Amino acid sequence: MPTTILEDIRLADGTPAAITIRDGRIAAIGAPPPPSPGEERIDGGGALALPGLVEAHAHLDKTLLGMKWYRNDVGPSLVDKIENERLQRRVLGIDPARQSARQVVLALSKGSTHVRTHVDVDTEIGLSGIEGILATRERFRDEVDMQVVAFPQSGMLVRPGTLELMEAAMRAGADVVGGLDPCAIDRDPRAHLDAVFALAQKFGAPVDIHLHEPGELGGFSMELVVERTRALGMQGRVVVSHAFCLGMADAAYVARLVEQLAEARVAIMSHGAPYRPVPSVRQLHDAGVVLCCGSDGIRDTWGPYGNADMLERAMIVGLRNNLRRDDEVELALDMVTHGGARAMELEGYGLAAGCHADIVLVDAEAPAEAVAARPPRRLVLKRGRVVARDGRALATAP
Amino acid sequence: MPTTILEDIRLADGTPAAITIRDGRIAAIGAPPPPSPGEERIDGGGALALPGLVEAHAHLDKTLLGMKWYRNDVGPSLVDKIENERLQRRVLGIDPARQSARQVVLALSKGSTHVRTHVDVDTEIGLSGIEGILATRERFRDEVDMQVVAFPQSGMLVRPGTLELMEAAMRAGADVVGGLDPCAIDRDPRAHLDAVFALAQKFGAPVDIHLHEPGELGGFSMELVVERTRALGMQGRVVVSHAFCLGMADAAYVARLVEQLAEARVAIMSHGAPYRPVPSVRQLHDAGVVLCCGSDGIRDTWGPYGNADMLERAMIVGLRNNLRRDDEVELALDMVTHGGARAMELEGYGLAAGCHADIVLVDAEAPAEAVAARPPRRLVLKRGRVVARDGRALATAP
Repeated sequence: MPTTILEDIRLADGTPAAITIRDGRIAAIGAPPPPSPGEERIDGGGALALPGLVEAHAHLDKTLLGMKWYRNDVGPSLVDKIENERLQRRVLGIDPARQSARQVVLALSKGSTHVRTHVDVDTEIGLSGIEGILATRERFRDEVDMQVVAFPQSGMLVRPGTLELMEAAMRAGADVVGGLDPCAIDRDPRAHLDAVFALAQKFGAPVDIHLHEPGELGGFSMELVVERTRALGMQGRVVVSHAFCLGMADAAYVARLVEQLAEARVAIMSHGAPYRPVPSVRQLHDAGVVLCCGSDGIRDTWGPYGNADMLERAMIVGLRNNLRRDDEVELALDMVTHGGARAMELEGYGLAAGCHADIVLVDAEAPAEAVAARPPRRLVLKRGRVVARDGRALATAP
Repeated sequence: MPTTILEDIRLADGTPAAITIRDGRIAAIGAPPPPSPGEERIDGGGALALPGLVEAHAHLDKTLLGMKWYRNDVGPSLVDKIENERLQRRVLGIDPARQSARQVVLALSKGSTHVRTHVDVDTEIGLSGIEGILATRERFRDEVDMQVVAFPQSGMLVRPGTLELMEAAMRAGADVVGGLDPCAIDRDPRAHLDAVFALAQKFGAPVDIHLHEPGELGGFSMELVVERTRALGMQGRVVVSHAFCLGMADAAYVARLVEQLAEARVAIMSHGAPYRPVPSVRQLHDAGVVLCCGSDGIRDTWGPYGNADMLERAMIVGLRNNLRRDDEVELALDMVTHGGARAMELEGYGLAAGCHADIVLVDAEAPAEAVAARPPRRLVLKRGRVVARDGRALATAP
């Protein structure tokens, strides 16, 4: 593989630089090296270089992207939405392979080079969602690194047979064991979490648990997660997604929970839900908790919003947390880059010699401007190969 | 002026239609009329037609658009931000005429055909902000209808001389009397509001008051606003902007306030601040309160966010209020169209025969998609003239 020089870029602190890429990795960052035969040179046009964006919480199997507009008139409760989705999967014909491919192409165009996606597993669809997503992972293996979470969206123990399907999903190639509201959905938090962690142990896999439960109820579930993380030596391998309970009013209890998360190295995924109490990004960051971010569902039967742009998502987190100063906005940017990489345990992530050459160029004077203005991505590289240019992915969606 | 036919557009309910425009107004909406000599035909490409977007709360005088990136390291309090802004006006050289022109051009590109802007009036800059904005209003008189609010950002009674400047601003051509946190800033709510309403009476002008005051304090100020609106017969002529107090915990008190707002026809401007308690858009709508929306400050010394796109702003309001169903998202869209028009007392607004031909075309299957996806505006017409096309304004920014 020839050497590629990505010239005339700027680093986060404004320093002009060139990035030398060899064998898909960053060989050097600094002054442009003298020309050498056979190398390729790419003009960065003075753009800001960021490491590839990390989408740490997607639902690729359920987006309606590219389908006819779905007029949403669903009821207000969580269960309404879950049941409506199961119904619409059949009525609308939401094909997981096709739909996930569409969202991957959109995500590439926005500069995501890593995606963790939760994929529904239930007794109605079995593993068809997982199989569709695994096909998409294979199809785009050179464009994006994808982690697949086996996700019991409709409940695990309340729907006998689901746990066995979860195990089959892991055997089929899922990477992460998912879980969901152990009190609110399965009505048996101990059993739900024991099953999730046992499966994770069996496959040596990490855990990622959706926790929408509010206030003290969610706090209790979170404690149970932390206890298991510690007892099983899974520090650094567990993510709690949403964690709305950390936005509860009882600040002293929240502070104790945050301390436990930091100590057990449980990461938090927050996408800055504007209508709910949310974890304070600053508080968690100051306590040393790893923070990541994701789109959550986009354009699906749950709601119409979202465009897979992790810079826009960082902006929403910034707005939700009132991050205004540049150093604060950079915290939101960190969640969609390095924070996501830590939560997802990515090897060789970053803009440094030795790392994979996963790079996004964006026309912005400063990192905070990249978040606030979200300009089209000038160039996206995955392991040194151009995968998107001027806001468009080179791959095409089905 | 010749007849213009805007062909091949779709109305909100999906009906294909053509809009006939004569003398800057909509002459008819329906089946395309037979060709007639001398008329101009514009191809709408099947796009969704919306009435021109209404930006009901901007701060055109303070944006840093087009200037070097401003690295923000301001302190957290409201007073920190107000004082820093006064300082940076000099340090950075924020020229109100130039900067407001830049934001107007951006707003045009996003489809805003009406803008209400608050303009700082204080003892340091005097009327220079007002004069700059009035110059911009004149410059773009054929592209956008602009309402200018004389706004005592640094306090009115606490800074002797400001009230006289406010009166001079109204005489110079400002349209609306502004006010600001009568308890928190001027420390004398009765005197502040009496002065604001007296000025409004003197000029026969409407009132638009920034009310950031939280909880019961803001509720008290709001009651004082309603009392004066009623006593002076100013029903339908008063806007309370932000109104964070309506997001307070005491639901019964909020309900009483909402009832009073509806009865006195005081409109509420909410831009869906994601980090604060906010008025419930649904509750206010159901009570019959007029709702409008605005960008508030964009890319300024207060914070880096914002792009003058009222469809994006409607999305943020939608996210903040958890508006998911199409009928709910349409409520947010109404705030940036008809609601804004009612709050700003616009004559001849809407997509109907007899109205001004202020029209935005957007590639969306449904109104909710326009909000969720915010596609580039295909075409923007102001009084029948094209002012923006394919996401770009025809006017250029200084």
